[in-house]
Amino acid sequence: MRILILGAAGMVGRRLIAALCAEGSMEGQAITAIDAFDVVAADLPPCDGVTINSTAGDIADRATVEALVAERPEVIFHLAAIVSGEAEADFEKGYRINLDGMHHLLEAIRQTGGAYRPRLVFTSSIAVFGSPFEAQITDTFLCAPLTSYGTQKAICELLLSDYTRKGFVDGVAIRLPTIVVRPGKPNKAASSFFSGIIREPLAGHEAVLPVDDEVRHWVASPAAAVGFLLHAATMDTDMLGHRRALSMPGLSVTIAEMIEALREVAGEEVVARIRREPDATIEKIVAGWPRDFDARRATEAGFTADTDFASIIRAHIADEAARGA
Amino acid sequence: MRILILGAAGMVGRRLIAALCAEGSMEGQAITAIDAFDVVAADLPPCDGVTINSTAGDIADRATVEALVAERPEVIFHLAAIVSGEAEADFEKGYRINLDGMHHLLEAIRQTGGAYRPRLVFTSSIAVFGSPFEAQITDTFLCAPLTSYGTQKAICELLLSDYTRKGFVDGVAIRLPTIVVRPGKPNKAASSFFSGIIREPLAGHEAVLPVDDEVRHWVASPAAAVGFLLHAATMDTDMLGHRRALSMPGLSVTIAEMIEALREVAGEEVVARIRREPDATIEKIVAGWPRDFDARRATEAGFTADTDFASIIRAHIADEAARGA
Repeated sequence: MRILILGAAGMVGRRLIAALCAEGSMEGQAITAIDAFDVVAADLPPCDGVTINSTAGDIADRATVEALVAERPEVIFHLAAIVSGEAEADFEKGYRINLDGMHHLLEAIRQTGGAYRPRLVFTSSIAVFGSPFEAQITDTFLCAPLTSYGTQKAICELLLSDYTRKGFVDGVAIRLPTIVVRPGKPNKAASSFFSGIIREPLAGHEAVLPVDDEVRHWVASPAAAVGFLLHAATMDTDMLGHRRALSMPGLSVTIAEMIEALREVAGEEVVARIRREPDATIEKIVAGWPRDFDARRATEAGFTADTDFASIIRAHIADEAARGA
Repeated sequence: MRILILGAAGMVGRRLIAALCAEGSMEGQAITAIDAFDVVAADLPPCDGVTINSTAGDIADRATVEALVAERPEVIFHLAAIVSGEAEADFEKGYRINLDGMHHLLEAIRQTGGAYRPRLVFTSSIAVFGSPFEAQITDTFLCAPLTSYGTQKAICELLLSDYTRKGFVDGVAIRLPTIVVRPGKPNKAASSFFSGIIREPLAGHEAVLPVDDEVRHWVASPAAAVGFLLHAATMDTDMLGHRRALSMPGLSVTIAEMIEALREVAGEEVVARIRREPDATIEKIVAGWPRDFDARRATEAGFTADTDFASIIRAHIADEAARGA
């Protein structure tokens, strides 16, 4: 079995590849090759029995995407995206990477034709929703994004469902909660601080909190995200019917609750490294984001979420220790 | 004031132009020119004081659309589309005309830049919704289309809202109910029979009814559609916020109720010309279409619907008489 991963060099992509290597198979079929593609080639550890082809290119280039699909991967994970802050700042780049890239991928699959109908797992986002909201966003609530990033994700979901309905692909779009705690450095996503206020103080650094403590948000751990991807790759998709986009289950927490969990796990000294510095631009973007979901379809389809925020922090600490080792 | 109409040769486009000519102005501003564009040049009657430029071309061609926008029309009506049945049969053509055409239009407007920010009225469709439905579809129900046509319209709505939010255009997407009674010949739309079973018997011809009498549908008259377009072109759009797509008000009627109204207006002899001939393909498409709406936002925004189906039939008879005269 051959697997293609677009956006392989990112945090979720690398974790996904590690999980696939550790497992060595999917649905009883041995994984023989993983094509790991990103805008920069991912430097990946070797993997027993699995050929890893790490390559770089631009998914907005149609020929590049066609060449990747020509290898006929049975499963494709499309994780590549320009993040929300950057897509808002650079309108053209956001549409080129986030929309044209997906369209090229779907077209390359369709034009392969014959019996080729890969499972395509696409990471969408809760940014497809925009306020005003229901108290809990249900599975039949409209997509009315308030960012170009959210618009691009919502359009990709519609394309994925239509190409699936026509029988060209077997698609599942999973709307990820904000992933917390992201390791590494802050990125250009407007949501970057949700991880920053946990990760940076734990590492001994100051972290800026640009929004109010009462802001509520919908989060999932990196491990939960990888679990969603693997389940989406192997689940029975018939139960989804023609609605191939699913809001993933998550945890609804306030900033105050996140900080309280950090205090519980790491103590007051660590919490003291959070500095409050309101940022009107980020506050405005975050105010348009969802806070809570009734993710019933995904739960019924077997997707499972984190149970509490303190466990997410402890898992992050364990990951960092393993990385340091 | 200059007005651009894409899809000017269609039934709604021609009626819109007639209404604009009869009025001669919009919001107190004299209409000086109407650029009437379609895939074939519309043969339009002259219009006192208004220059009508009737041209033909392909909206999937970017340069063609750029040339139309270069005239800097203050109001643009985008009515051009491949209809549902044809977009389902020809996947590539549907995306090219219904999606690329809109994207070219939005890009041409954005790239004009400066203070240019025209009002863009886009005719979307209730085909953006797919079953299973709520009993009455509300303004916050998800777009989950079951046709490529509906998918293309839903994507255009998302693009229109995002380009509007970014300040490039002042867009309003109006989701038209099925227009009944369409004059002229049956077309390739799967919904064509909704008009056919009224129009053809009244003209002395047999009409085929491919679905069950209990099928319920959401309809509006041609006159109501033109009213929606004119209101969308002149309304205060601030009240719409960032959600620029609106389900238009309409009439929810069953086939049986339509036939009963035809009997009331035209008698049993006319009704007898309807021949029942079930068509599984059309039944399947129509089963995925909405039947009833709570079109609250549009009603609050001042859009008004037809009041009863017999009046729609009588208006059609009067229109046909005027056309014959």
